[in-house]
Amino acid sequence: MAKIKTEIRTGAYFDSVVLMQLQRDLADLPDVEDAGVVMGTEANLELLDQTGLLVEEIKDARPDDLVLVVKAKNAQTAENALARVDELVAARRGREGTGEDFRPKSLESAVKLLPDSHWVLVSVPGRYAAGVSREALRLGKHVFLYSDNVTVEEEIDLKQKGAEKGLLVMGPDCGTALINGIGLGFANQVRRGAIGLVAASGTGLQQVSVRIHEYGGGLTHALGTGGRDLSSQVGGLTARMGLDLLERDPDTRVIVLISKPPDEGVAGKLLEYARGLSKPVVVNFIGYKTALREIDNLYFTSTFDDTAAAAVALSGEINAGEEEGKFSLEAFAPDQRYLRGLFSGGTLAYEALLILDAYLPEVYSNVPINKDYRLENSLVSQGHTIVDLGEDEFTVGRLHPMMDNELRIQRLEVEAADPETAVILLDVVLGYGSHPDPAGELAPAIGEARKNAADAGRHLEVVVMLSGTDVDPQDRAAQQEKLAAAGARVFLSSDRAVRYAGRLLKALEGAPQPPRLGFSPVDLESLKGEFAAINVGLESFAESLQSQNASVVQVDWKPAAGGNADLLALLEKMKG
Amino acid sequence: MAKIKTEIRTGAYFDSVVLMQLQRDLADLPDVEDAGVVMGTEANLELLDQTGLLVEEIKDARPDDLVLVVKAKNAQTAENALARVDELVAARRGREGTGEDFRPKSLESAVKLLPDSHWVLVSVPGRYAAGVSREALRLGKHVFLYSDNVTVEEEIDLKQKGAEKGLLVMGPDCGTALINGIGLGFANQVRRGAIGLVAASGTGLQQVSVRIHEYGGGLTHALGTGGRDLSSQVGGLTARMGLDLLERDPDTRVIVLISKPPDEGVAGKLLEYARGLSKPVVVNFIGYKTALREIDNLYFTSTFDDTAAAAVALSGEINAGEEEGKFSLEAFAPDQRYLRGLFSGGTLAYEALLILDAYLPEVYSNVPINKDYRLENSLVSQGHTIVDLGEDEFTVGRLHPMMDNELRIQRLEVEAADPETAVILLDVVLGYGSHPDPAGELAPAIGEARKNAADAGRHLEVVVMLSGTDVDPQDRAAQQEKLAAAGARVFLSSDRAVRYAGRLLKALEGAPQPPRLGFSPVDLESLKGEFAAINVGLESFAESLQSQNASVVQVDWKPAAGGNADLLALLEKMKG
Repeated sequence: MAKIKTEIRTGAYFDSVVLMQLQRDLADLPDVEDAGVVMGTEANLELLDQTGLLVEEIKDARPDDLVLVVKAKNAQTAENALARVDELVAARRGREGTGEDFRPKSLESAVKLLPDSHWVLVSVPGRYAAGVSREALRLGKHVFLYSDNVTVEEEIDLKQKGAEKGLLVMGPDCGTALINGIGLGFANQVRRGAIGLVAASGTGLQQVSVRIHEYGGGLTHALGTGGRDLSSQVGGLTARMGLDLLERDPDTRVIVLISKPPDEGVAGKLLEYARGLSKPVVVNFIGYKTALREIDNLYFTSTFDDTAAAAVALSGEINAGEEEGKFSLEAFAPDQRYLRGLFSGGTLAYEALLILDAYLPEVYSNVPINKDYRLENSLVSQGHTIVDLGEDEFTVGRLHPMMDNELRIQRLEVEAADPETAVILLDVVLGYGSHPDPAGELAPAIGEARKNAADAGRHLEVVVMLSGTDVDPQDRAAQQEKLAAAGARVFLSSDRAVRYAGRLLKALEGAPQPPRLGFSPVDLESLKGEFAAINVGLESFAESLQSQNASVVQVDWKPAAGGNADLLALLEKMKG
Repeated sequence: MAKIKTEIRTGAYFDSVVLMQLQRDLADLPDVEDAGVVMGTEANLELLDQTGLLVEEIKDARPDDLVLVVKAKNAQTAENALARVDELVAARRGREGTGEDFRPKSLESAVKLLPDSHWVLVSVPGRYAAGVSREALRLGKHVFLYSDNVTVEEEIDLKQKGAEKGLLVMGPDCGTALINGIGLGFANQVRRGAIGLVAASGTGLQQVSVRIHEYGGGLTHALGTGGRDLSSQVGGLTARMGLDLLERDPDTRVIVLISKPPDEGVAGKLLEYARGLSKPVVVNFIGYKTALREIDNLYFTSTFDDTAAAAVALSGEINAGEEEGKFSLEAFAPDQRYLRGLFSGGTLAYEALLILDAYLPEVYSNVPINKDYRLENSLVSQGHTIVDLGEDEFTVGRLHPMMDNELRIQRLEVEAADPETAVILLDVVLGYGSHPDPAGELAPAIGEARKNAADAGRHLEVVVMLSGTDVDPQDRAAQQEKLAAAGARVFLSSDRAVRYAGRLLKALEGAPQPPRLGFSPVDLESLKGEFAAINVGLESFAESLQSQNASVVQVDWKPAAGGNADLLALLEKMKG
């Protein structure tokens, strides 16, 4: 009958790699059947129970107790095994051969050894991690905080301190990052390229990086923020600092923003911030519902695969997209601010309303998506208006506006004469059944309307979505030319026509206040050049950096004051 | 001072083309300044008011009154112009030269003239349109119902009658369709191809057709349903008949489903129906919010442009996508039905939960998206379970599961031994920081678990998402091979891995009852061959069909019983 012997060490600290190795070394001893070496958390005790190792003596162990259990052929063998614990740990350290290097005992002396290091990697147990991170910030270093079990209050405190000094605090519970091609924590080897990532999601960052590589793209930096960064308490501070950094980084052309299900409010604000950037941002907030997949520079995706695909596609196509969006605001008179959309197609009007919702606060219509914005009278515009002239109220005993342009031309004159009208948006639908030459009637009216406006000192922008194929009976190219010759801006994509109008009208509303940053920007130079870091905690992270030819100094860290919480607090206070 | 003279004709019927032409002819007479020829609706009277033509005598005109207004140099000229109305109409008819053809007076005789016609196009005024359509259905014809101002009760009645006989009722207010390359109503000339459309949206159908053509794709049929088809009252009956038709049509490889903002309940049921089809369906319900862009064969898009792009892409790639999804259910034991996902990556677990939501009713987790499905105990699975082994409760004083496979292997054994487990889903994350050879430890455990299950008469499906690049330190190809050799199904895309598991588990739940059709299927033969139709209403629709080399007979339609509503009702009753 096998016997189980146990030991509890209170306040003892070992690296978790050491714990794992010790457990295996114990289990490998002759006549030992099984062994457990764990911190005494509830979950760990339950796991010991599942493997039959939870005996009475250790049932009351506390989370910061180190619990040692050995099950052996007889009691003596088990006792002997436990007696060899310190020897086994020492032997393992010797075998690993890393004991040869000089290891500073403190972060401060590590920094003196490697003054070029801009980073400190922290993976000590959660209850010590905030203290080490604060020390790193005091020394002016970015923090990669792998440790979990750090409170949200500590996280907020650390991030605010970092924000003041322009230092990133990635984490807690940040598993991964790529800085200038060097992977921190868990990270994949991926091509360098033009895509930068900000991710409140460890494996999200990894999987998207991997798929970007797979699709032929590459990365500048991938910045983890820790999974709680987009919670209501933390408010996305690290994410914002990361976005700002990538916006300024000249090598980054496309930004990817990923998060586990975020707080709705924080997500909204962060998206608003991202929309103020000049670069395309591909957004994947897991489970976040959107009706529109594209808003200005924001592209919404729903899985890691399509996130990667979209980013790679955008990193190749940016210039193509920007060209058609150029406009100048100078010619408009100060009172000009409203859109008047005169549609013949009902669903084209709906799509326009849907897309405009991302640009303009209120658009009235006789076919509103939001019933609050129903036009009082379809015949009279109010504010921004989209009117569907094909609706029933216009078509009793009258031809559809795709066949008969008269009503639309009449309304065009009315809208163009309104000194508050800035943009007129029209659909022109070609094809069988439609008017044989709509541009032949609409173009002169557009030209006249623009001339009248110009005579009154205004600039009237007429945007036309021309819907038809190159083989339609009306000769699309000729229609397009007539409309363009009259001064209309013609798009073949309904989508792009509306986005163009939306951007223009939004710009006319006046430039928004540049958002208050709430942080000092990160110095881009700190991300350039040879990567150098100080590692406090899991040695495997230092080894991984070495294997990537980065400079790293491992701190021979032990909890100060033997891990006594009161003494620790006092020490921190003394350091200021 | 100009004078205005008016006339009201009660119960008079003219084609709206005739009204438009008459108005122009009157306005062109010498010394006439302006003219109005409209039905006396409120909107039309207001429009007359805007152009200064609304005088006292016509203010009380009713919607079915024909209102004639002439503004001329003097009263006599205005009177003379009004006196010439009938002569002008007759002259116009003569000039058009279409009066030469023999025109049957009734639908019934038109059908005898053109027995091969499968279609009747109806564009008479709304209040007569339902009657004409019912007659067409009685004669066994599909109805393209362009007219608007038809009540929803009439629409439901027509669609139910059509459904019983396997006849399509497209409309009311259906502006467009393409049948076998022939455009009805408003329609663009587009390439023939492999994409079929169903659209509760006129210009949506047109714009997507146009963009499909632009992107190099082509169409089989494009079926309009009328904009109200997806309302709660009508319930999407025509849309379902259209989907069923395109599913059976051998030339259609990809289906596109478009709608103006639909009723939520109807949209949900229609999507469920579409999901039961074997072909990919690209869905664009304007303004419809989805968290996931792909569910089985459904692909959600948000603008006409990306709808067209997705359809064209899919019509080229179908075979590539289907291959990896094949599985057989035979080997599973009857009790096997649950998924057990054992994750090392938190966001990979989230993505899996999000995607699985489209396949499985309830998935429990320690990181649930829906809090109702929080695992009571992270250590014990219940039903379908996804557990993130990297969560805090597992990692106190313990290595992350990406570094240490022990806990996962232990849990794998437990799950595999559960006779209700059908599928085990694992992520294996490669890269720096991760275990140097995860497959080296996991593959033997997978092999063992599958063997134990097989010995107990079960088939254990192990699905692995392998996250890593071809240049990661672990040698991805070798990792993949080890896992595959142990019998795991390995995917490099997390997305596809989860969808595969989801489809398999859904299939294991048992085949769903085939949905009750609620209609007789449309005879595919009626859409083949030379297009032939009967046109009742707008002559321009008949001309348009002729220009496309289709056969068409125009009915010389006049409202029966002089348009008297009571008499009309009586007549209809008599016809049964």
